[in-house]
Parts: sequence; structure tokens; C-alpha cells
Amino acid sequence: MWDVAEELGAMLVFAEHRYYGESMPFGQDSYKDAKHLNYLTSEQALADFAVLIRELKKTVPGAQDSPVVAIGGSYGGMLSAWMRMKYPNVVVGALAASAPIWQFTDMVPCSVFYKIVTEGFSRNGADCSDSIRKSWSAVDNVSSTEGGLKWLSNEFSLCSPLEKEDVLVFKAWLQETWVNLAMVNYPYEANFLQPLPRWPVQVACTYLQDSSLPDAPLLQGISKAVKMYYNYTGNTQCLRISETATGNLGYLGWYYQACTEMVMPMCTDGVQDMFEPQSWDFEAFSEECYGRFGARPRAQWAGTVYGGKDIGSHSNIVFSNGNLDPWSGGGVTQSFSSNLVAVVIQDGAHHLDLRFNNNYDPSSVLKARALELKYIKMWIEQHSLSNKAAAPCCL
Amino acid sequence: MWDVAEELGAMLVFAEHRYYGESMPFGQDSYKDAKHLNYLTSEQALADFAVLIRELKKTVPGAQDSPVVAIGGSYGGMLSAWMRMKYPNVVVGALAASAPIWQFTDMVPCSVFYKIVTEGFSRNGADCSDSIRKSWSAVDNVSSTEGGLKWLSNEFSLCSPLEKEDVLVFKAWLQETWVNLAMVNYPYEANFLQPLPRWPVQVACTYLQDSSLPDAPLLQGISKAVKMYYNYTGNTQCLRISETATGNLGYLGWYYQACTEMVMPMCTDGVQDMFEPQSWDFEAFSEECYGRFGARPRAQWAGTVYGGKDIGSHSNIVFSNGNLDPWSGGGVTQSFSSNLVAVVIQDGAHHLDLRFNNNYDPSSVLKARALELKYIKMWIEQHSLSNKAAAPCCL
Repeated sequence: MWDVAEELGAMLVFAEHRYYGESMPFGQDSYKDAKHLNYLTSEQALADFAVLIRELKKTVPGAQDSPVVAIGGSYGGMLSAWMRMKYPNVVVGALAASAPIWQFTDMVPCSVFYKIVTEGFSRNGADCSDSIRKSWSAVDNVSSTEGGLKWLSNEFSLCSPLEKEDVLVFKAWLQETWVNLAMVNYPYEANFLQPLPRWPVQVACTYLQDSSLPDAPLLQGISKAVKMYYNYTGNTQCLRISETATGNLGYLGWYYQACTEMVMPMCTDGVQDMFEPQSWDFEAFSEECYGRFGARPRAQWAGTVYGGKDIGSHSNIVFSNGNLDPWSGGGVTQSFSSNLVAVVIQDGAHHLDLRFNNNYDPSSVLKARALELKYIKMWIEQHSLSNKAAAPCCL
Repeated sequence: MWDVAEELGAMLVFAEHRYYGESMPFGQDSYKDAKHLNYLTSEQALADFAVLIRELKKTVPGAQDSPVVAIGGSYGGMLSAWMRMKYPNVVVGALAASAPIWQFTDMVPCSVFYKIVTEGFSRNGADCSDSIRKSWSAVDNVSSTEGGLKWLSNEFSLCSPLEKEDVLVFKAWLQETWVNLAMVNYPYEANFLQPLPRWPVQVACTYLQDSSLPDAPLLQGISKAVKMYYNYTGNTQCLRISETATGNLGYLGWYYQACTEMVMPMCTDGVQDMFEPQSWDFEAFSEECYGRFGARPRAQWAGTVYGGKDIGSHSNIVFSNGNLDPWSGGGVTQSFSSNLVAVVIQDGAHHLDLRFNNNYDPSSVLKARALELKYIKMWIEQHSLSNKAAAPCCL
């Protein structure tokens, strides 16, 4: 974005989503209860952006007739795509990077996400994903004794000793670690969720090369891989399983959104993926949401309001996805038309294309960025042509 | 709609807009205060329709894959157009009849509405509109004495004697009468707002053929024209200036909507139109709204959320307007593209095309209906083609 902005003489605007960061509509009370959280919706966020853009055009000198392109990754990519769908008058086009707009009810199989996570590991050898697949029962076995719990706490350098009742949390924490590793499997050293080496999944897999190992040495490998994620810098004293790996990214806000309109069914079967089998249980999820927020999810709403798979009438959106990114499973990876375009980035993780250019970038992402720029320029050109055309056409 | 539904084997669904008719979300409290009225917005209405259509498709046998076309007139026409713009996944196209989607802030001159009203009268002779233009000072003159007030009350058969302080209301009531007459100036006897003869403006103008008359005989002509509107049946005992001519059509709901997001600037100058000069005063309007509802209007919002004049990226909407209809001034009367089409109906009043076929229909409306049907069939055809195309195209 920075490179391209300079080339296009563009202003970059980073709009903060309501209820995140410093944008708290009710100050400290914003997360107090369902009543205060009620205005945390993607529709409201889109409306904010529409009003903001209008306001900027009115107040920034020279901006009045400037075309605006929405750019975002992940949820921000979803918002970018939806911004163009719902406010084509406000943005001339959108780059939706790693935007899983189809990760909602009845759009893709709930298994696709964890299947892609698994593939990210198994491409470094079947032993890698097999080791993880076998680790769950290994944890169960080892944690069944007091000595085993102590050994695990020590081996994983946990800040608080593992208790019997924490084992589920421990396993969920491991699972989230693998997910995040797959997401940020970048071809160079990076610090998106954590400081990490280049190709971190590959590095993790160097510790997971023999899935036939007995429980203890198997888990030692797991521990080394996990520490690579949490302690690549070597400065981390101990690991906290209560801290989610993405805890700093507005966890609670997204949890509320997932509990209302952003319902993303996920499931595992332990065969296509390397996780313990877990079916998608909407009722249980709904109960959890009600207990936590006093609000219940509306499973079908995202599909109704944002078109589901039926988005073919829209225009000027580029959907980019990396094939390594688990979120690509819920993304748009085939083009609908010449102006509703999908770009798949070989060897790309989560919105790699939005990152700065790097010497280690695979050629696929360079091509993707060039294509994205081509489309952005085309949208800008369309806009200046339509501004020139005073008389409406046809009839 | 009835004729076409039969031909297409379609189901007609009349969805009631929330806060109108029997659709009161808080029962008798729905209009109690701003808090209860807060959910009365066009966006919420559109979302209702989206959810309703999804639900009908799920529950009505055989409806699952049926394409849905939105059809509406006036505000309903605006909703139809917006439904296609915001939910192209839910409706394959929209017929927006007499939909003044541009009657909002900064889109068309505020004078256009009353100018078209005036033209409806002046096309029956300049004396007709001139008589009305002169009637305002005639009312002022005559109502300046007690005897004059009595004479007016008698001449207009008012149910309650006119008081000095009612004169503004009396004139506003006259003005609204002319507006409504222009809107329902149909080529045959009809009963939309009131039972009326064919070409009622022409009939009214038969009483307004000499604008040089002195005040009293001029106002006698006005009275006859007004009585033609309110008492065509001959069953009306007396006229009530406190009853708005459209009082039964959810007046308060629309007033609230106009006071929040549906801000439609209107003005008169007495030159291009036949009314007393009145500029558009947003501040005064805002005060009025705040006093009435405790809410203030957002003048720019309609343009932001529904695209203003920048709607060229949408598709599959036919905008129809009658040239006699004052609302056509805020309507889309030139096509944007081959699937965003404007149809102007010569000698057509407010959504004439949505009415039943009639022997007195001008050929223009017959052509318009045929064209509308052609487009509806085309959208249905597109839908069945896209359902058949399993594989997405391109790239």
C-alpha cells in the first residue's frame, strides 16, 4: 500500500473499526453489556467508513473528486469487499486480501479451514502433521498422572503448573498455535502475530520428523515447535496457556461479532485434518454466546446481507488468497467475471500480498501485486472517465 | 402485477413495511417516543424484506429456486430500487415506479416538485395555474375581516368555521390538495387518494378559467375545484382542513422518516410555480423534527447510503416515471445502461403503470408495461441461466 500510494499520488487512510482500539462509542462502558455492544456490527462499521470518506472528501483540499479504493486483509478484506458491494458510490473498487467471505453457514464445508492448516504442515512431510495428530492422545496419556502434569509444565516452560482441569485449555492453546503458524507462514522473518523465522511451519516441522516416537519424545518435539512460535526471540521467560496467541487483536470484540452476525462454522474430523474430531454444534455455540454476552448468533444473516455465494452482480473487487492460508478455504478463489476477480497466490500465507516487498517474496506474490495494481489503476481510470461523461448513455 | 403474475406463474407477496398498518414492533407503544421509533428506517425495512424472502423460499413448496422481482411505487418504488442495489442476491431485479430516489439533499433543485405540479395545471390553460397563484393573496385579503372568514367558511363548506389563526393551515391544505390532484391525475375515474373523475386536473381547471377575476369569484372557482377533489361522490357533508388529504396513508410514520433519513428539500418561488414563495429551511425543519420526535434529520445520509446520483454500477432496475407526476422531478428519467433503465410515460401521473389495465390508458403506459415485462422476463431468464452454469467463468 505504501509503495503504491506514492506511485498513484494517493492518501492512505487507516480507519479504525468501532469498538476496537481507541474507537469506543461508550468509553469504558462499551463492552459492559449487550445493550452497549449492540452497535458493534459490520454494517455499522461500513456506514462509519462511508460517512468518513464523504467527510474526508469534503474537508481535505483536493480530495473532492478523488476515487477511493478499499483495501483490507482478513476481516478487513471482508469489509473491503462488502464496502464495494454495499457502497459502490463511495468506493470505486476493493482489494479484499485473504477475506473469508464464504466462511459462513452453508457456504463451504466446516472442515475446510483445519484441513488447510493441516496441509500446511503435511507439505513438510507427513510425519509433521502425523506428529501433531498423535500429540492429542499423548497429552491425554501423559497428563493422566501428577508426574506427567509436572513433566508437561516443565517441558513446555509453562508459567503456571498445569492442572488436571486445564488439559482441555492446554490442547486448545496448542491447536490455536498451529493455526496461527499456518496463517503467518511467511517466506521471510516477520512479526505479525509473533516474531518468527522465515517459513516458520517448516522450522516447526524440523522438530516433528518422526511420528512413531513414544509420547514423551513426541511431546518434546511439540514443545520445541511451540517454543519456536512463542519464543523465537529467546526473551520469553515462560509460556502462558491462558493467553491466546492473538489476544492483542481485539479478541473480545471479534468474539462478540462471531456471537452475533459473523458466525463461522468450523469442524474437525481427525482424518482430513490433524486435530481431535469436533463437529460444529451451533446450539452449544449459541448457549455459549448467550452466557457470555446475553446475545444469540443469527447463523443465516451474514449470507442474507452480504450475498453468500451469489455475488456475481457486483463489480470491481479483487479477491486475493494465499494457498497456504487456512482462511483461503472460505475465500473467493475463482473469478466471476472480468471485474470480479480471484487471485490465488502460490506459497502465500495470510494476506502476504499486503505486506511490504521483500527479497524473499515468491514470484507469485509479485505477480499478484502487479495484477492488483493494474485493477486499481483501471478503476481509477473508469472513475475519471465517468466523471467526464456528462450525459448519461443509452435508451 | 396481477396480470403479469398470472402470465409468469408467479406468487405475489405484499410485504407490509414495519411501523405501518398492523406491523407495529412495539404494539401500541411503537410511536411513543424516539426510542421506540428508532427501528423505523428504510434500511431495517429492506432487511425485513430480505429475511422474509429467504424465509418464504425456505418454506413455500417450489419457491426455493424462484427468482424474486421487487416491485413498488412511490416510496415503495424507492425501496424496490434500493432492494436491488443492496440485496442483489435476494432480488434479481426491480421495477421502481415513480420512485423519487433523487429528491434528497443536493441531488435535484428543491423547486422541481412544485414546478411540475404547476405545469400539470398550466397545461390546461395558463389561467388555471394563474388563478391558483393569485388565490393566496385573495385568501389573505378576504380572511382579513370577520365577514370574509365567514364567507370563506361557507363558500368552502368547512366543518369548523375558519378562524384568523387558521389561515396558514387553510392555505397549506389548499396547496396539498393541488399537489395530490397533480399526483392522481389519471386518465380514467379512479380512487387512489380520493374518488375522482377522469383527468381530475382538467376538471378542476374548468372552474379556473379566468385569472383576472376579483378575489371573491376567483375563490369561488377555487372552492369548486377543491370540492371536486373532496366531494366527487357528493356524499361529503363538509370539508375539514385539519385532515390532510393523505391522512390515511401512515402520515406520522412518513413524517418521522422524513425527520430522520428521508429528508426531501422542497421550495417554491411563485414564479416557476403557482405557490407562495417559500425557501427550503433545513434548520427550521430540524427544529420542527426535534420538537415533534426528539430526533434530528441527517440531510446527507440518504445520499451516502443509497448512492445519490452515482448509481451507475447497479443493474437490473427499471425506473418508470410519468411526466405529469410531481415526483418525477426527483426520479431517474434517463437510462444509465442497458440494464439500468429509465422509462418516461407521457401523460402518466403517479405510478400509473402499476395500475390495472384500463380502456382509457394512453398508449405510452401500455408500451411502458410491455417494456417492464420484457425486462422482468429477461432477469428471470438470466437467473435460470446462472443457476445452470455450475462452473464460474474466467481466469
